[in-house]
Amino acid sequence: MEVFDPAELWSRERIEETQLVRLKNTVGQARKCDFYRQRLDEAGIGPDSLRSLDDLRRIPFTTKEDLRTQYPTGMLSVPQTEIVRMHCSSGTTGSPVAICHTQNDINSWADLMARCMHMVGVRREDVFQNMSGYGLFTGGLGIHFGAERLGCLTIPAGAGNSRRQIKLAKDFRTTVAHILPSYALILGEHLRNMGEDPREFPLRVALVGAEPYTEEFRRRIEGLFDMKAYNSYGLSEMNGPGVAFECLEQSGMHLWEDAYIPEIIDPETCQPVPDGEVGELVMTCLCRQGMPILRYRTRDLTRFIPGECGCGRLHRRMDRILGRSDDMFIIKGVNVYPMQVEQVIMTFPEVGQSYLILLENDGIGDVMRVQVEVRDEFFVEDMRALQNLQKSIAQRLRDEILITPKVELVQSNSLPRTEGKAVRLQDLRAKK
Amino acid sequence: MEVFDPAELWSRERIEETQLVRLKNTVGQARKCDFYRQRLDEAGIGPDSLRSLDDLRRIPFTTKEDLRTQYPTGMLSVPQTEIVRMHCSSGTTGSPVAICHTQNDINSWADLMARCMHMVGVRREDVFQNMSGYGLFTGGLGIHFGAERLGCLTIPAGAGNSRRQIKLAKDFRTTVAHILPSYALILGEHLRNMGEDPREFPLRVALVGAEPYTEEFRRRIEGLFDMKAYNSYGLSEMNGPGVAFECLEQSGMHLWEDAYIPEIIDPETCQPVPDGEVGELVMTCLCRQGMPILRYRTRDLTRFIPGECGCGRLHRRMDRILGRSDDMFIIKGVNVYPMQVEQVIMTFPEVGQSYLILLENDGIGDVMRVQVEVRDEFFVEDMRALQNLQKSIAQRLRDEILITPKVELVQSNSLPRTEGKAVRLQDLRAKK
Ligand SMILES: [Zn+2]
Ligand SMILES: [Zn+2]
Repeated sequence: MEVFDPAELWSRERIEETQLVRLKNTVGQARKCDFYRQRLDEAGIGPDSLRSLDDLRRIPFTTKEDLRTQYPTGMLSVPQTEIVRMHCSSGTTGSPVAICHTQNDINSWADLMARCMHMVGVRREDVFQNMSGYGLFTGGLGIHFGAERLGCLTIPAGAGNSRRQIKLAKDFRTTVAHILPSYALILGEHLRNMGEDPREFPLRVALVGAEPYTEEFRRRIEGLFDMKAYNSYGLSEMNGPGVAFECLEQSGMHLWEDAYIPEIIDPETCQPVPDGEVGELVMTCLCRQGMPILRYRTRDLTRFIPGECGCGRLHRRMDRILGRSDDMFIIKGVNVYPMQVEQVIMTFPEVGQSYLILLENDGIGDVMRVQVEVRDEFFVEDMRALQNLQKSIAQRLRDEILITPKVELVQSNSLPRTEGKAVRLQDLRAKK
Repeated sequence: MEVFDPAELWSRERIEETQLVRLKNTVGQARKCDFYRQRLDEAGIGPDSLRSLDDLRRIPFTTKEDLRTQYPTGMLSVPQTEIVRMHCSSGTTGSPVAICHTQNDINSWADLMARCMHMVGVRREDVFQNMSGYGLFTGGLGIHFGAERLGCLTIPAGAGNSRRQIKLAKDFRTTVAHILPSYALILGEHLRNMGEDPREFPLRVALVGAEPYTEEFRRRIEGLFDMKAYNSYGLSEMNGPGVAFECLEQSGMHLWEDAYIPEIIDPETCQPVPDGEVGELVMTCLCRQGMPILRYRTRDLTRFIPGECGCGRLHRRMDRILGRSDDMFIIKGVNVYPMQVEQVIMTFPEVGQSYLILLENDGIGDVMRVQVEVRDEFFVEDMRALQNLQKSIAQRLRDEILITPKVELVQSNSLPRTEGKAVRLQDLRAKK
């Protein structure tokens, strides 16, 4: 298999050996800033404390609040003169989060991003159109540098302006685009309004990420443009894009474990969840000099996908983001994330636009009800069909979240909306 | 003198020797595209035709219309797979102009830009905030790559959002910014509205360009922030920023003659103008592989500044852009550009916001009248002061444009405006 970086094909043994070496280096590097030195000292982690990868769990977590407190440069592990780039979350009030990179950091980030694109068949012969905003947002420069590193003809189109996007893509025969899934729909619509068939559009690969979207939605935009859409995961605290990316198998995103150590924990207990179960992603970067971050609580919910990928790469795969850990609710002792429910019910073609999770207490215990809108053409008098649908949804939900909710089918547009946005969860249980 | 690139200090001999070698290479490279091969063949320019720099003048001009006709990739001199970046003028209708770069082109562009910034004392210790839009516009990525190449902590802030610009600049102690002159005023205003003194702002150097502005305006924003503002010149057809830049002397912009051959011609006759006279800048790039452009008619009006610069660099200097050659008018056989008039009258502190050039025919010959608004505090009953002002303006105009116009002083806001924009020129002469 042709790869961009030999590390893609490393054995688990080689990956884990490298992780330990790089973790030690990274912890040593992190100790160069007061914040981490103090925190590691408090936790009793000295330069020689890490004997195995299991010792990672002795390192305290880093939270977004830590990054806010240390803004703007409290977490630098190099003199500021070594820094060549800063990316920053937006926000003009309060303390934003700023991530600073050395030239080496920028280079290895570009390599990681190039590796992702190469994995799904993008080559220097491709024309790549970056339909992402540039500036402080990492989806612009981060992916741009990766595409140039790969040698693609890179068009820094920026966000929006559909007419120009379409003109550029047609004129340069753009084969690969970085695009928001919702914007892909808009572009397709625009083409149709122009009397054109989006499947005739030259696009053959889309890199998508940055907003949560379902598998069904992916298939929809793939069909719309007759292309392949690959999921991307990244967050500015870990550089930005280039952290995890789908291979041609489209069955989860390979986390580049030579550059990061991912963990998935129960956000309540902070203990690792069993393989395959949903929890909060925690990330440690292994290749950053300017501002290494240890055990960062991403707040993103996902799970490791068990088993080996058909592509042969042994870097573990993560599922798409299933929500934010802040959205989690607990019912009958089980952690549930609204996105898990959504994922299940949106696989049913009969299901319409909206759903609502209701949590109640019937005096004996907690009850979970899921109200699901059914599309008009399926909401017919055939009671048996509706009962079967109801039963199927309940079963599939139980398989996913391990408890059986009461499923109620309702008519289109009957569920409450707040300012146009669907309400997904109402917790009516008495607060303890 | 410490320089970024030894070429900055080359002798004229060394510069011109290098220009000839690189011109031959560039013409050879350009011949790899059908457009130039055909055009050079028609002009009888073979691979061995160029014996001296004077032979440059045998090469036909390239116009914006040529670039439009060859859009999108008709002027590539390398296989498209060698291209890693495209920049493009905006415009969704008609044919835009697209400039394509190889990796080498991008690297030498970044070097040129880094050289400019280094020349005015910017170093890796500096924090650089790029307040320019990114994407297809070259002022974003072009200057960004230069700043990173120099090793500055580069903040890709993008355009607008004054509150965020100010917060970032304060938090990171931004010492250098790329900023539109008009936006510098807005930022200063914003700071004052916050009850702060812009002179306390950490900014010490501004790179300004991209819109025409007067020397007086430069001094105003320099005073506002207690900083130095250096003029930058570039155009996407010649990469973008990095073509010419002021040194610490602030007396014209050094054109990097190891990378470009500049000419200044009379836009009517297409012949070179005498040294120091205003004409249209024509540029040939010497270091581009992907899309070399020969004798490009920029339509920008400027002049070579005669004499040697105090800094010791022997790369010729150009004046700020004095307008577009399309704006030129001819009176009494002399080419005049409205910006020349503006430059003169705006040096008088008594002069207000607007002026108007009127061209008339009094039956005997052409007459040029210049109506000048005078600020209220100077528009007083002291007739002698006003007469002196009138006389001074007329004299200074004659020195600049070689004919003596009739100067008329008028009250503030008395001159015509069209949709808020001042009208600068009315040609009332009978069309021949
Ligand atoms: Zn795979
Ligand atoms: Zn100089």
